Amino acid sequence: MEFLNHEKRPDTADIAYVIKGFQDGSIKDGDKVTLKGTIHRIKDMSGFAFVNIRSPRTVFQCVWEDGKSELSADAFKDFSCEECVIIDGTIVAEERSRLGFDVRIDNMRRISGKAAVLPIEVGNDRKIENLNLNTLLDNRVIALRNPKVRAVMRVCDGVMYAFREFLRQEGFTEFVPPKMVSAGAEGGADMFEVDYFGRKAYLNQSPQMYKQIMVGVFQKAYTVGPVFRAEKFSTNRHINEFQGLDLEMGFIDSFEDLMELEGRMFQFMFKTLNEQYAEELAMFAPGKGKKGQQAEGTKTLIGEDGKLPELTRFPKIKFLDAKQLFADAHPGEVGIKALNEPDFAPEEEKWLGEYFLKEYQSPIVFVTHYPAVKRPFYAMNDPENPNLTLSFDMLLNGLEVTTGGQRIHDYEMQIAKMKERGMGIDDFEDYLTMHKYGMPPHGGMGLGMERIVQNLLGLDTIKKATAFPRDRDRLRP
Amino acid sequence: MEFLNHEKRPDTADIAYVIKGFQDGSIKDGDKVTLKGTIHRIKDMSGFAFVNIRSPRTVFQCVWEDGKSELSADAFKDFSCEECVIIDGTIVAEERSRLGFDVRIDNMRRISGKAAVLPIEVGNDRKIENLNLNTLLDNRVIALRNPKVRAVMRVCDGVMYAFREFLRQEGFTEFVPPKMVSAGAEGGADMFEVDYFGRKAYLNQSPQMYKQIMVGVFQKAYTVGPVFRAEKFSTNRHINEFQGLDLEMGFIDSFEDLMELEGRMFQFMFKTLNEQYAEELAMFAPGKGKKGQQAEGTKTLIGEDGKLPELTRFPKIKFLDAKQLFADAHPGEVGIKALNEPDFAPEEEKWLGEYFLKEYQSPIVFVTHYPAVKRPFYAMNDPENPNLTLSFDMLLNGLEVTTGGQRIHDYEMQIAKMKERGMGIDDFEDYLTMHKYGMPPHGGMGLGMERIVQNLLGLDTIKKATAFPRDRDRLRP
Repeated sequence: MEFLNHEKRPDTADIAYVIKGFQDGSIKDGDKVTLKGTIHRIKDMSGFAFVNIRSPRTVFQCVWEDGKSELSADAFKDFSCEECVIIDGTIVAEERSRLGFDVRIDNMRRISGKAAVLPIEVGNDRKIENLNLNTLLDNRVIALRNPKVRAVMRVCDGVMYAFREFLRQEGFTEFVPPKMVSAGAEGGADMFEVDYFGRKAYLNQSPQMYKQIMVGVFQKAYTVGPVFRAEKFSTNRHINEFQGLDLEMGFIDSFEDLMELEGRMFQFMFKTLNEQYAEELAMFAPGKGKKGQQAEGTKTLIGEDGKLPELTRFPKIKFLDAKQLFADAHPGEVGIKALNEPDFAPEEEKWLGEYFLKEYQSPIVFVTHYPAVKRPFYAMNDPENPNLTLSFDMLLNGLEVTTGGQRIHDYEMQIAKMKERGMGIDDFEDYLTMHKYGMPPHGGMGLGMERIVQNLLGLDTIKKATAFPRDRDRLRP
Repeated sequence: MEFLNHEKRPDTADIAYVIKGFQDGSIKDGDKVTLKGTIHRIKDMSGFAFVNIRSPRTVFQCVWEDGKSELSADAFKDFSCEECVIIDGTIVAEERSRLGFDVRIDNMRRISGKAAVLPIEVGNDRKIENLNLNTLLDNRVIALRNPKVRAVMRVCDGVMYAFREFLRQEGFTEFVPPKMVSAGAEGGADMFEVDYFGRKAYLNQSPQMYKQIMVGVFQKAYTVGPVFRAEKFSTNRHINEFQGLDLEMGFIDSFEDLMELEGRMFQFMFKTLNEQYAEELAMFAPGKGKKGQQAEGTKTLIGEDGKLPELTRFPKIKFLDAKQLFADAHPGEVGIKALNEPDFAPEEEKWLGEYFLKEYQSPIVFVTHYPAVKRPFYAMNDPENPNLTLSFDMLLNGLEVTTGGQRIHDYEMQIAKMKERGMGIDDFEDYLTMHKYGMPPHGGMGLGMERIVQNLLGLDTIKKATAFPRDRDRLRP
């Protein structure tokens, strides 16, 4: 019988292996190496060329020189960008190089097929940044290969990792809610309809019911997965399918427990990104990108040092106080209008974000006690003022990225609030089952992965924080 | 301005805190404690009662005695199972107790609403195991609270964690594919149709296209998320929505690289489960459960010590050799029929699983080189025999849990294979774009989370490895 040779062997053809070796001295000037990668750019100067090779997290420079390489000038000319190659090379110490060395190409062979002429210049950051959004998204399959576009996707990976890892350390258990459901968690508007073996089903617009159910099971539960919203409007912060980060927590003493948890979560997330995603963050430091990439009025949270700020404290303010703060700063019509609305307009959120950044050096602010009319039927009312709820939003960099709060856990209280709203109790049988058989005081929150990434990096649209965005007109690629 | 008190404080009301304290001596006989939990079972013996309290990962025993508690007999009688409580108690060292102590109830207060009379006995493992499947699933909202049902869901968490953590350590990056698509990755059968703003869309039946695209971006990519299959048949190993674990890897030397990676992955997974999910696994040790829970012919992989076996080597066998092995062991009609079929029947897989367990002490076997007719259009043919492919299945405990293999990376080769199959090239424009602009040799695999858990624990149906299963008739809860 044959068995696999499953021992892990070092990947010596990965540039990361060579970089480490060069740093620790085990690989030196003149050493022979074999490296793999994708041709990112070629700068051909007749008889001599710089060949930039792209690897998963970096781009490194190789040099080809006619006569000093087994590769003839004709053979060299046959290579094109985006082709995958194996390079037999020699390390050449080079102080001017970012890595401290270049790789002299002794030979190179193509292991992909021949690449066609590119419709967009994957290897040119500036040109990719200047593409209009539709061109960028139409060519998403290859645009994602651009290092800066790819870095956004790497930060997505980091945000999801940090969310899960933090919650795991806090004793949470992951669960998997179904996406095809018979009715909506939030009451049913804005749902995509599915043909389910001839019956009507819907794509779930929130795991709300399921995460509350799981509080009865695990006490602390979370899920990461797609959330579907059939909203027709098109803004730079909406997509029709996004990656939801949802958690729910039982036996809370107060809804403040939830905000404290989230504060620690963002501390962990920023620290993780700074430590493990430094190369990617550095690409978004101020001055590194095109100005237009940053949404009007927002900017990346990344500092000139290429790092996210350290989070040390988290201001909180009641909704009505925040409204007053805005109104005081905007005497006249603008302020009066703001006071009369039961929710924030985008410009109010933006102003609040700037205020707390300036006054308290905090890119995060928790706004609490939102009006009941603006919160769902399961939100727990504030016992001190039933027009308000024990709820919060977290604003990050002047944009709402989290909605959370305490939920009603008592069966009678939940029925009463639903009746008050004229809702049909029978449509919520599964939902009410959990309340009927004992639920602890609990609450939770939902975050949008793409919105967090948009805000951290200062992207002008959330679609750039999504590998394959879906909007009203876009179902491809 | 107010700031959150976001420092992490120990959760002293969690039984895990008290267990640890009792073990290290910081909590002793006679100490006062405050504990939270859910009433799991009450054994009332008039004037005296055992009250089992459920916490996230354990059930602990409390005792109430009339006259020795502030809680009167009348007040005590008012409590019911599934109510959430806070207990003021005293530690009583008790050698016969599993934890080494009981908790004397000095007082107890309900923090949930009153619970209604339960339709199923959540606190009785045997009765829950004996429920018929429909009753179990109709009552899923509370059935999930049963410790053994919950343990299955905890193992799901463990399998997803191990998959991600292993790949992260191997240098993979997570990405998010869209679920709503304009066409199917595999050609289009068995897809759920979605009304997408008046247009037809589909729920993706595989992230195949997207994970290959991401090879061009990250080299090594993975995704965990729902996969939708509108298959009409109903077996104990099919559901219409499952949690897919998908990975894809570029610059491979051979498709054996993929199997080697998977071997190491399962080593990591088994080790992680043994170390971090020991309480849950122990509940599925042989002799612990109802025999009927185990599917006919399969059984849990967990040994009498409550642990998964150590994986030390991974046998591999070619598809045609495996067929011959089966035929040799089944002379006559059964064997001849098996040789004539281009795929395995379930009983052949089962037999193979048993054979490799008996002969090589391996619960895992890799079967390689499947016939091309049974593999998709993107499978790389075996250069030595174009009727076969560079593909594999992994059988775990006699059931297929992985399908994988090398993909075609050359544009011309892919077009040729599609034409050979009479496929329309135009329908695959996005798919072919990646091949057109340079793709390295690559391959990958897909695993079903629920199937792995079903096999590890020996569950008689995959629906028991799913929190909220979807089948042809079931869209609720």
